[in-house]
Amino acid sequence: MSKQIRFNAFEMNCVGHQASGLWRHPRDRSGDYKEIGYWTDLAKLLEKGLFDGIFIADVIGYYDVYGNSVDTAVREAAQIPVNDPLQLAVPIAMVTEHLGIGVTISTTYEHPYTFARRLSTADHLTGGRIGWNIVTSYLDSGARNVGQKALLNHEFRYEKAEEYMEVLYKLLEGSWEADAVVRDREKGIFARPEKVHAIRHQGKHFQVPGVHMSEPSPQRTPLLFQAGSSTFGVRFAAQNAESVFVNSHTLPGLKKYVSTLRQQVAKQGRDPHGVLVYALITVIVDETDEKAEAKWQEYQQYISPEGALALISGWSGIDFATQRADVPLGKELSGAIPALVNTFAGEQQEWTVEEFARFGSIGGLGKVFVGSATTVADQLQHWVEETDVDGFNLAYVVAHETFADVVQWLVPELQRRGVYRTSYPQGKTLREKLFGGGPLLPDTHPAHRYRDPKQYGQPQTSEVKA
Amino acid sequence: MSKQIRFNAFEMNCVGHQASGLWRHPRDRSGDYKEIGYWTDLAKLLEKGLFDGIFIADVIGYYDVYGNSVDTAVREAAQIPVNDPLQLAVPIAMVTEHLGIGVTISTTYEHPYTFARRLSTADHLTGGRIGWNIVTSYLDSGARNVGQKALLNHEFRYEKAEEYMEVLYKLLEGSWEADAVVRDREKGIFARPEKVHAIRHQGKHFQVPGVHMSEPSPQRTPLLFQAGSSTFGVRFAAQNAESVFVNSHTLPGLKKYVSTLRQQVAKQGRDPHGVLVYALITVIVDETDEKAEAKWQEYQQYISPEGALALISGWSGIDFATQRADVPLGKELSGAIPALVNTFAGEQQEWTVEEFARFGSIGGLGKVFVGSATTVADQLQHWVEETDVDGFNLAYVVAHETFADVVQWLVPELQRRGVYRTSYPQGKTLREKLFGGGPLLPDTHPAHRYRDPKQYGQPQTSEVKA
Repeated sequence: MSKQIRFNAFEMNCVGHQASGLWRHPRDRSGDYKEIGYWTDLAKLLEKGLFDGIFIADVIGYYDVYGNSVDTAVREAAQIPVNDPLQLAVPIAMVTEHLGIGVTISTTYEHPYTFARRLSTADHLTGGRIGWNIVTSYLDSGARNVGQKALLNHEFRYEKAEEYMEVLYKLLEGSWEADAVVRDREKGIFARPEKVHAIRHQGKHFQVPGVHMSEPSPQRTPLLFQAGSSTFGVRFAAQNAESVFVNSHTLPGLKKYVSTLRQQVAKQGRDPHGVLVYALITVIVDETDEKAEAKWQEYQQYISPEGALALISGWSGIDFATQRADVPLGKELSGAIPALVNTFAGEQQEWTVEEFARFGSIGGLGKVFVGSATTVADQLQHWVEETDVDGFNLAYVVAHETFADVVQWLVPELQRRGVYRTSYPQGKTLREKLFGGGPLLPDTHPAHRYRDPKQYGQPQTSEVKA
Repeated sequence: MSKQIRFNAFEMNCVGHQASGLWRHPRDRSGDYKEIGYWTDLAKLLEKGLFDGIFIADVIGYYDVYGNSVDTAVREAAQIPVNDPLQLAVPIAMVTEHLGIGVTISTTYEHPYTFARRLSTADHLTGGRIGWNIVTSYLDSGARNVGQKALLNHEFRYEKAEEYMEVLYKLLEGSWEADAVVRDREKGIFARPEKVHAIRHQGKHFQVPGVHMSEPSPQRTPLLFQAGSSTFGVRFAAQNAESVFVNSHTLPGLKKYVSTLRQQVAKQGRDPHGVLVYALITVIVDETDEKAEAKWQEYQQYISPEGALALISGWSGIDFATQRADVPLGKELSGAIPALVNTFAGEQQEWTVEEFARFGSIGGLGKVFVGSATTVADQLQHWVEETDVDGFNLAYVVAHETFADVVQWLVPELQRRGVYRTSYPQGKTLREKLFGGGPLLPDTHPAHRYRDPKQYGQPQTSEVKA
């Protein structure tokens, strides 16, 4: 049997996510991101297409590396304005029954004690369908606006993120035992205090002496996503993530990434296929190759390469406004950009800034597939078989037309080939639906060691004031 | 014409809010707080009853003053577990058209730069029906769990809160001009950079150089609620708040509070009736006085005075576990508790700890009215006319029975008397519905001075990198 293909939808609570300038397209709805109907319509469409989930990106701050100013980003709506993604989660769950909801939230801007409650709340109110995409943030502008001189360096951010995860695991997995809440109306015991533990975390970055504010939610720890592609990022993902998103627009680059990641996951004592890898792509599909190609050409009329450069400058930290548009970027330059390593892996071509900007204007730094359902299905199957990737994180060009086309043309074709599900799997929670096991993190996950407070040297009861 | 009466519903994203032990009542639904249906059912009920809004309280931390331990609070579900209130706002807006949604969020736990985006997002997605209840937090346990040695002192918290508000006003009112977002598809200009301003805030507690991440929302600054009753609290409310909640279970105490507050509001150059005051009460109403009295007696069987003491100890900072139950509290003691000043103002009675605990078990520290619609309507009209209060913040005893009874019996009686609206007022936003003006803060509000960045000495464009 051929390997199954999974789809996620890639979105962001903003106008211009990965399709620079396409907000100008007459059929584009992305300007309606401020209205809840934009999101509930999309969620229902994705569930109709049996997508694993919707994955909502985020940044804190804005793109002001390009030209040393935020002006281009503001003019082009390049991920600014950008609203809070978390407030979309429960509304999406209200209009769907199966769709997973992945939300990007940084470990840099909120204390883990209060953030743990946000996660538990989202998991409760979505019935266990929430996923958290762990990021450590890359925009200097975000750090400056919360009173930091500049963004912490990459390695230090990951070190702090590791302790952040430890605090979260202690709160989410260890503070309230499974049988703590008894709701005994006769005896008047809502929860048994001896089963609710102060976590007494004393670390380098965080001190959290007390108990978690929320009772256990369906998944306890939400499904963990990660998108790290640097050395630290891959290690962190291999330790913690259950789903990984990767940007790699070449087949050899993707193949190498998937292989490296699975090896690292195995090294951590985890099932290498217990982590699902989704590659960022964009699909432009229609009834025939010709119609798809025409649509692609039509979309191209609306791109804004300068908007794309504002984003790419922010991702890379390099001000592309100071580079000549027609000079080849050079492998040295592209290789020096950690965020772009996977983008360029296996790439033979020498890109100029202009080519790069045009490429990045549709679908961000992911591969774009254009054609009839037959054509695109052939290509996706080839990629999946060659690279061992589990599925794709689909960006849109025109909201919600791009996703509607995928649901209308591509999903039925993949179903006919037996490589795409025809109904949602059993299980209420996102973790059950993705992995078929229980709703909680498996015992091979590092969170496991924080389940029993005795295991990490904590007293068993909360009798001493935390 | 008699003074109109307004209702708000007082809730919290937890099991036991203001009715200690009543989660044990067979008809109580408060244990379903984790499910979104609990909230959407309630919201639809309140809108049927033409309530101004639902007001969701919150704490960060837990009640561990009583007996120097969190155990009693956990056993009694005394505001723990407690989930994030903000994630309820958009779902409530989705199932209603008019209801305001007030959410309590502390100025102590999140940086104003990221918090401003949460507020803008909530205001966008609710179509301008969000209110923010500004609190500075009172639980030491919350502060300890985010790595502070102890809660900042009361005066310092308010000083910091004042600067926090200044940063928010600059971001929400001043950063994006009204005509910044033009969405010009022809010219490819989403927003005009020269109309988006870096706020360049350099203060004692916060440094925020940049632009706000969100475009202007319907109300820009959400409707501002406050519940401060200390000297600092009243001054802060008089400066900033548009709606004020007060705990005062006696008529003279409430009268004095309302009068003081309106004087302070006028001193700030604001319309003294431009601030709506809602007093915390509980209404137990039924077809007849006898039936209401019987219901009240039945409810009493489920109270937990110890759970109430866990809350009261947290509110006051005094460990009531160390006080003898039958000894009068003494006016000195009660007067020494800032949070209880209004509770005891005008009170003749000397309370023992036990009496106080029983009193506090239903409806928190607010007055309880029991009777037929006629009886309760008489009393509420008397209170409104004597005290100049604008309305009531209604706590529940049994969720959602208490609110259903009010909607079924009391609202129609008040409508017959011409003192309660028979339809919602015009206007889409909460501010328009409450005050009949526009969706934005009036020019007499202190936020006004931050609308034009030139007025507070900032450069007019964002051309210099923030």
